[in-house]
Amino acid sequence: MKFSIKNTHKHSRVASLTINNKTINTPAFMTIGTYGAVKTMDSSDLKKCKAEIILSNAFHLMLRPGVNLIQKFGGLHEFMNWDGMILTDSGGYQVFSLGKDVKITNKGAEFRSPFNGDRVLMTPELSIDVQTKINTDIMMIFDECIKYPSDMSTTDKSMELSLRWAERSKQSNYLSKPLFGIVQGGMYPELREKSREALIDMEFDGYALGGLSVGEPTDLMYEVIDENAHKLPTNKPRYVMGIGKPLDIAYAVRAGVDMFDCVIPTRNARNGQLFTSTGIKRIRNAKYTNDLSPIDEQCECYTCKNFSISYIKHLDRCNEILAARLMTIHNVYFYQNLMMELRNAIISSSLDDYIAQLERNFREVKND
Amino acid sequence: MKFSIKNTHKHSRVASLTINNKTINTPAFMTIGTYGAVKTMDSSDLKKCKAEIILSNAFHLMLRPGVNLIQKFGGLHEFMNWDGMILTDSGGYQVFSLGKDVKITNKGAEFRSPFNGDRVLMTPELSIDVQTKINTDIMMIFDECIKYPSDMSTTDKSMELSLRWAERSKQSNYLSKPLFGIVQGGMYPELREKSREALIDMEFDGYALGGLSVGEPTDLMYEVIDENAHKLPTNKPRYVMGIGKPLDIAYAVRAGVDMFDCVIPTRNARNGQLFTSTGIKRIRNAKYTNDLSPIDEQCECYTCKNFSISYIKHLDRCNEILAARLMTIHNVYFYQNLMMELRNAIISSSLDDYIAQLERNFREVKND
Repeated sequence: MKFSIKNTHKHSRVASLTINNKTINTPAFMTIGTYGAVKTMDSSDLKKCKAEIILSNAFHLMLRPGVNLIQKFGGLHEFMNWDGMILTDSGGYQVFSLGKDVKITNKGAEFRSPFNGDRVLMTPELSIDVQTKINTDIMMIFDECIKYPSDMSTTDKSMELSLRWAERSKQSNYLSKPLFGIVQGGMYPELREKSREALIDMEFDGYALGGLSVGEPTDLMYEVIDENAHKLPTNKPRYVMGIGKPLDIAYAVRAGVDMFDCVIPTRNARNGQLFTSTGIKRIRNAKYTNDLSPIDEQCECYTCKNFSISYIKHLDRCNEILAARLMTIHNVYFYQNLMMELRNAIISSSLDDYIAQLERNFREVKND
Repeated sequence: MKFSIKNTHKHSRVASLTINNKTINTPAFMTIGTYGAVKTMDSSDLKKCKAEIILSNAFHLMLRPGVNLIQKFGGLHEFMNWDGMILTDSGGYQVFSLGKDVKITNKGAEFRSPFNGDRVLMTPELSIDVQTKINTDIMMIFDECIKYPSDMSTTDKSMELSLRWAERSKQSNYLSKPLFGIVQGGMYPELREKSREALIDMEFDGYALGGLSVGEPTDLMYEVIDENAHKLPTNKPRYVMGIGKPLDIAYAVRAGVDMFDCVIPTRNARNGQLFTSTGIKRIRNAKYTNDLSPIDEQCECYTCKNFSISYIKHLDRCNEILAARLMTIHNVYFYQNLMMELRNAIISSSLDDYIAQLERNFREVKND
């Protein structure tokens, strides 16, 4: 793994990350393909949207279809026919999403499979084993993610548990694949610092900020990112997990973050919320009924080059699956284009101007 | 409109049909794009599946999105970005599908829109007007389609009504666009003959057999096709509406039919039923769980060239939309390939051998 910084502007940086002969440009946005497919899209669609890296979920893939099948293919890339980069989440956040049905012990997280009721004990060792076997490019340590708000003592205990699991994740990385640590500590600066410094001492290949976008106020999320991002090692990739909206990403890039993932572009597309160069457009708004223009005149995506917003609105109204697909293609492209523009803004030292433009478009989610 | 027969073998023939500078090869199968989209596919997907013509529904498009919007685009081709040929069904069969909620008079069919409750009076004149305005390539006359079984007197009256509507459809074809007549008469040979001869006297640009695949035994359907197809004018396209399975199509081709439409390839794909060179495969069959092969080793479709059956089975199990899309692409391609093989079999005078092979694969729908 090679991380080469090409340009910096204050805390922000443009870099390239090379692993297994695959290179991505950062700051990068990872579209989510939980089950080995970005919803409605196949791997060639992702290419057309200029995606270089996607995020997949070790937790979900372990349960369905299981590690054995993916191993038979030689890994997740071959299974889904994707030759770009893949980062896998360890399952920490997904276990957290199961809520009260999970029993957390020092050993790991015990729960019943939502699909067949089987008892599963997810441990750092198992998560790393799964991620290794599906032959991902970047692995995440297995950690505990707690809800917001949580009191300091609960947060401290959870953070300490995550540190022990981080160490076990590292120890069990038997093929020494790229492995990122995840800073926890909730909204408590002193706990974030403790987690951050301990993880830095363990020497991971990259560092993520976890436990964000779990219900806390946006300003608090920004504070944690602003306080922590630039204190992570300069020479390694920095990743904020689970965010976000275009502005969230832009602010985090300014704070020195290199990588992102979020369901927003894909999930919102399926609900008819489209990101454009002039802000949000909602396909279900009556004003698009007779609009012969594309979703975004400025956009170069497959959808905008070939179809009008009124056609897509018609398909959406008729519950045609094609509507979800065309809107997903548009939003995924928009996010990739956003990252390219952020990289260009860093290179040309115009990040503040670019962010001001995004603020005009996305400060409030416009309802047209 | 130009219909040029290139090869014949007994009743069957290979021809080309040219309209508005677009040419299709017949026998041809028209995939169904009711609302201006073949479910899960866009127009470039159709091209990749080698489709040359699709069927769309004047009735549905009139209700959603309405004729005005499509006219603004210059027609349905531009609306859906499809430069292949389009045949539109007139709405006769769709009105029939509404069941008891329709009032049929000499004037037309009166019903309430299932979408907004508006009272709609569909007439031959309105149907032709809609089809003309959406700028289809081939129009169908507006007729009445009755249920199976219906007694002779009911069938006779309905057939006579359809003849009067056929005449009105022809009279109202103000742009003299290609217009096909539809032979009715249920399962009664004498009524079919009367309908057929009357329509031939009216001189349409092509002739369809309607009122089939409405619940009658398959053998009865074959009888009607065998008795009527070759008695339709030799120099004009012959079309059997709403069929069918691969064998149904092959038998009808042998009987002299040139055109087909059916929901089977697309609907069955969404239900996981796949057509292959060795018969039917059902994606939900456990035997495909660990199968690294494509759906069909012999198939050249996008799905088979890029993905394995176990990957698609996994997606289907996880309710990923991509599963429906990949299976639809496969089945649509299979049907286009079937038509090409039927054309080749006619050219090489080996149609009976080819049908014998299809019988081995599709006589009974195999459950693997």
